[in-house]
Amino acid sequence: MKKCELLYEGKAKKVYTTEDPELLIVDYKDDATAFNGLKKGTILGKGAINNRVTNHLMKLLEKNGVPTHLVEEISDRETVVKKVTIVPLEVIVRNIAAGSLAKRLGLEEGYKMKRTVLEYCYKDDALGDPMVNEYHIMAMEYCTKEELDLIASYSLKVNEVLTDYLKDLGIELIDFKLEFGKTSDGTIVLADEISPDTCRFWDSKTHEKLDKDRFRRDLGGVEDAYHEIMKRLLGE
Amino acid sequence: MKKCELLYEGKAKKVYTTEDPELLIVDYKDDATAFNGLKKGTILGKGAINNRVTNHLMKLLEKNGVPTHLVEEISDRETVVKKVTIVPLEVIVRNIAAGSLAKRLGLEEGYKMKRTVLEYCYKDDALGDPMVNEYHIMAMEYCTKEELDLIASYSLKVNEVLTDYLKDLGIELIDFKLEFGKTSDGTIVLADEISPDTCRFWDSKTHEKLDKDRFRRDLGGVEDAYHEIMKRLLGE
Repeated sequence: MKKCELLYEGKAKKVYTTEDPELLIVDYKDDATAFNGLKKGTILGKGAINNRVTNHLMKLLEKNGVPTHLVEEISDRETVVKKVTIVPLEVIVRNIAAGSLAKRLGLEEGYKMKRTVLEYCYKDDALGDPMVNEYHIMAMEYCTKEELDLIASYSLKVNEVLTDYLKDLGIELIDFKLEFGKTSDGTIVLADEISPDTCRFWDSKTHEKLDKDRFRRDLGGVEDAYHEIMKRLLGE
Repeated sequence: MKKCELLYEGKAKKVYTTEDPELLIVDYKDDATAFNGLKKGTILGKGAINNRVTNHLMKLLEKNGVPTHLVEEISDRETVVKKVTIVPLEVIVRNIAAGSLAKRLGLEEGYKMKRTVLEYCYKDDALGDPMVNEYHIMAMEYCTKEELDLIASYSLKVNEVLTDYLKDLGIELIDFKLEFGKTSDGTIVLADEISPDTCRFWDSKTHEKLDKDRFRRDLGGVEDAYHEIMKRLLGE
């Protein structure tokens, strides 16, 4: 499988067409951005780590009944995925208050939510990815009610599977962001990535942050944190 | 019924205890504020208009199956209401995009939503009344699922009744904010007010604004707009 044309370049990934119109190749970059692109930098080795961690977790999720866009890892940084139309929503799943939620609701970072919280943001950089609820999603037709119900149920399943899996590796899953897409036959599948860029991972014992918050908040040890996640998940 | 102690003074109303522990007296002020208190002013006659318009509409809603806190209007500015514990949510009902929604989702003011939108904000001035969804409400226990379902169903009923009623008076109901409370026996009732302070009313033909946006946006003719609403609703 070879890359044909560059279809799209995002903040952390490039996406290429292939000879198969149903398949794309994702190429992960070391570039890091935060705060809707206001902060920029590089995290050495991030592209390869995010590619491998994402594929590892997507395989686990497939086994547990969550369909994903994953087809095949073809190099350290490159993966063949199904071509999908992205549902224009970021789904944020939160177990423990942190980041924007802690700030908005006046909660201590680390506060354990009494129930898992799902949030939806409308994917639009120019608008700053505004938070929306189910009524906005239906009224603006970002997706159908049936699609949203499926997305919510997959998101909660992803949370259940990953929380259990990571717990055994001494990692607490604080919150994470998912994106879903529709394949050409209309199937909803998990897309995008699941990595230290898109999840908050805390060491279960020390509560040390092992994710992009080290970059966002200038905590130092950014590369070490990404490598630690890869080591615990993939044994390398 | 006489006022005893001042229980609470808000931006637009004072609330007094009475000799009956189940009843309070609300006293509407002419004070106007906007943008979470950042803008302050006076709208002459507003207190009396909001008192009378609120009671007029609450009576209409009671007749249509929506329980309210209204007991009895005792003067131009004063009304006896049931004592309730306020559910700490502002419910915003939107038919047409305007104000914060238009800005957040990048919509033209006046865009007709394909479905009525409900939004919830957690009532907390210090946090700026942040928007929350059903998951936040359940996780933070702002109210129970059963209470929220009832609140949502009452809010949609209020919208239906008021939209129809106002249409005949040449007024388009763009959006509005509701608050609900629980009486001592746990019954959920509509509380607070329904007035040009809490609703966007547009003239159906000219689309002229007949509400607090005239104050918020320095459009002039603020008092005239409030009087026009009273005239159309109460014939005075």
